[in-house]
Amino acid sequence: MALHAQNRQKLLDRMRAQLEAAGRDSTNGVILLQGGEEQNRYCSDHVPLFRQESYFMYLFGVKEPGFFGALELYTGKSFLFCPRLNPEYAVWLGKIQPPSYFKELYEVDSGHYVDEIHEVLKDSQRGGDWTLYLLHGQNTDSGSFSKPASFQGMEMFNTDLELLHPVLSECRVHKSKLELDVLRYVNNVSSEAHVQVMRMAKVGMKEYQLESTFLHHVYMYGGCRYCSYTCICAAGENSSTLHYGHAAAPNDKVMLDGDMALLDMGAEYHCYGSDITCSFPVNGKFTEEQRIVYEAVLDAQKAVIGAMRPGVSWVDMHKLAEQQILQALKHAGILRGDVEAMMKIRLGAVFMPHGVGHFLGLDTHDTGGYPKGTSRILEPGLKSLRTIRILEEGMVITVEPGCYFIEPLLEEALQDPAKSEFLVKQVLEKFRRLGGVRLEDNVVLTADGCENLTKCPREIQEVEAVMAGGAWPLSKKGA
Amino acid sequence: MALHAQNRQKLLDRMRAQLEAAGRDSTNGVILLQGGEEQNRYCSDHVPLFRQESYFMYLFGVKEPGFFGALELYTGKSFLFCPRLNPEYAVWLGKIQPPSYFKELYEVDSGHYVDEIHEVLKDSQRGGDWTLYLLHGQNTDSGSFSKPASFQGMEMFNTDLELLHPVLSECRVHKSKLELDVLRYVNNVSSEAHVQVMRMAKVGMKEYQLESTFLHHVYMYGGCRYCSYTCICAAGENSSTLHYGHAAAPNDKVMLDGDMALLDMGAEYHCYGSDITCSFPVNGKFTEEQRIVYEAVLDAQKAVIGAMRPGVSWVDMHKLAEQQILQALKHAGILRGDVEAMMKIRLGAVFMPHGVGHFLGLDTHDTGGYPKGTSRILEPGLKSLRTIRILEEGMVITVEPGCYFIEPLLEEALQDPAKSEFLVKQVLEKFRRLGGVRLEDNVVLTADGCENLTKCPREIQEVEAVMAGGAWPLSKKGA
Repeated sequence: MALHAQNRQKLLDRMRAQLEAAGRDSTNGVILLQGGEEQNRYCSDHVPLFRQESYFMYLFGVKEPGFFGALELYTGKSFLFCPRLNPEYAVWLGKIQPPSYFKELYEVDSGHYVDEIHEVLKDSQRGGDWTLYLLHGQNTDSGSFSKPASFQGMEMFNTDLELLHPVLSECRVHKSKLELDVLRYVNNVSSEAHVQVMRMAKVGMKEYQLESTFLHHVYMYGGCRYCSYTCICAAGENSSTLHYGHAAAPNDKVMLDGDMALLDMGAEYHCYGSDITCSFPVNGKFTEEQRIVYEAVLDAQKAVIGAMRPGVSWVDMHKLAEQQILQALKHAGILRGDVEAMMKIRLGAVFMPHGVGHFLGLDTHDTGGYPKGTSRILEPGLKSLRTIRILEEGMVITVEPGCYFIEPLLEEALQDPAKSEFLVKQVLEKFRRLGGVRLEDNVVLTADGCENLTKCPREIQEVEAVMAGGAWPLSKKGA
Repeated sequence: MALHAQNRQKLLDRMRAQLEAAGRDSTNGVILLQGGEEQNRYCSDHVPLFRQESYFMYLFGVKEPGFFGALELYTGKSFLFCPRLNPEYAVWLGKIQPPSYFKELYEVDSGHYVDEIHEVLKDSQRGGDWTLYLLHGQNTDSGSFSKPASFQGMEMFNTDLELLHPVLSECRVHKSKLELDVLRYVNNVSSEAHVQVMRMAKVGMKEYQLESTFLHHVYMYGGCRYCSYTCICAAGENSSTLHYGHAAAPNDKVMLDGDMALLDMGAEYHCYGSDITCSFPVNGKFTEEQRIVYEAVLDAQKAVIGAMRPGVSWVDMHKLAEQQILQALKHAGILRGDVEAMMKIRLGAVFMPHGVGHFLGLDTHDTGGYPKGTSRILEPGLKSLRTIRILEEGMVITVEPGCYFIEPLLEEALQDPAKSEFLVKQVLEKFRRLGGVRLEDNVVLTADGCENLTKCPREIQEVEAVMAGGAWPLSKKGA
């Protein structure tokens, strides 16, 4: 809970600074957020497992649905408002706890019921013309807007929907030491689970059996009930579908001899996520073609991580990865010509249409990628970047170069004279059924470089050794 | 897909019969349903794994989001409408298939795009004044209403929101042979997983480790990616919380020596569910008190299953379970006095506040429990029944008597003179920290009796033997 207290303090400091900078009263007003609510599935009484809304989680760490939380600008006092539960709840869902219980549990200054918000806030203020700051703003990954808090009697207050969202989004960009501890833990758990999956993988298994192995490992041994996203377990050509694994492509192929597997899976703990991808041949031995593509991606990943430090542009890191991959494909004879010329026409986006990485935290694609005044670069590949920022200490970002042979993109490139002049069709043919390779680590920016939180086997000899049953020296942390 | 073709035929037959009975034109009109849609979590781009809406699943078996489906009353012709996907989909989510692909896959008569609904339906009709039958009605478990289909150009059609819902809900009540095959399969998988959990359970484990073991078993060996509901893994006093295991009570207690465990977990396959509860002492040996409560519940379950056959009232089955449990508690000295008198004041609801069972199918609490003209009996215990119907062949229903020591209910009973005269307080004290026992099997009504689909160890000596590592002879079916 100290983690969340620090988060609240950070927000208060920045809100006050913002208000002062704008020449507004920074001592009068209240920040109010509404937590997530449970929702039934369609018309049925099936309730999917509740997961707290990320902004609310950031400030209050509350696991239960139906809460509100407030922060008083003047005093910094924190409030939690819990729902008033029906007595039936005690029979069906558990002991009914009073507001004082949640006040203690979540270490806030004051606990009340949701139906008391109006009265509590009214009484808390020193009079005068004060404002309720509500969360309203667009998520730059989904395009959706966060839902501002809404409660009975709200029409009595002055509200501001503009100020809070950019400030709070930006607070989440730089992780505190305590946040990094959680992220490090969940990365350790997920790394271990990936190693376990590597050991278990065999020709003839279904893709989903690797998903099941992963989920079991992170929950059984790491206490991670949630994952950051739906597991992508793609074998063979499926590995060229970047977000395979959803309900319409449910990890249900049999893995064949000669298939590459691309496994993008990450557990979540206390709502902080991990996002790790491993790629390996299902039969445990790389073919020559697999080795070429894998090493192209691995070299790109190493180059990026080697270059990451505060002050570096993430766009440059994306281009660095592209350049490494194009260079390797040229070396392998799949491409010919000048790599700089390829870069100019954005040929890299044919083989890596996604961005080289994104912020990671309470959301898998974490907030703050495009602060006010910035916008996406409308060029192939670069337009997929979920952030174009200059790297700063405390940012946590995935480094996930990939190289894929995606049929519609290759077809398009072959038919485009500007692109096809670089493609050596007869060599390319040997790779077209390989699918793709992605290697994804989670990296935190330090004062003068970066720290890789992910500890999976990456070198080819490491991967082959672990798949053959060899030991893997992970640093372990208990659950 | 034959299963869904049969379901469609059943609906067509009944709709025509209904229309004829009402003196309306049964040969002109179209049934139209909208399938489920993917939804982001809050404002983020996190997409929880999609699960098809149950009514749509019943008729069309479609696993993908964003579909519509239609049935023509006159010809019986079936239509599927798939969403027109953005070309980007092919890169991120998989191959874009044309309507003809889904027509073949789901074995319907005609495939189109969603944006063609208006045109296709307009052209399909023989003219005249025909009606679009949409699904709108209240779910008697959740109180929510199903969402009628809605598409561009719908205002051009006559629509009826009344007729379809009761007919379709009722179709789902009686399961076909093919539906029973799926339910039998998922029950076998879940039964096996419960046995595996029994074998693994040890003092000192966390409750969620049993959940993880179950989830892994049904997915890894049974291909079940979804469960019918959030797993309830309750040890010690938690077992008296009927729906423990949700986000606010997340199966996170350490299981202690002397704790009973109550595990209510069921896998889902092709959206058909199972719903099974086992109860056992975590240390593998029943104490005297645990044995008394367990046998009370087991005897109640046997009595109900022994009495179930078409023509029997489910309310009577609930009362039979209550009577057995009260009798056993009297025998154990917890209660004194006349059992019939206890029944009259509904004392059974103190120890079993929930209903003795509910329909099971595409929803865990399946549709049709309260057809038009029926309503809940407003008495303790009975008011919790999710159906009060007379049993009929083909119904699948859970049989889940339970006996719990729920603090708020016991306190209330002890303070109510009408109830407390039956309670022997000093004996009751010995049981108050036991929590509760529930035993839940899934049973299908046959022509002259019933078949129990669940195959878990139930007798005390069976449970103790399996927990000690003994074999359990389950009939197995491959995934």
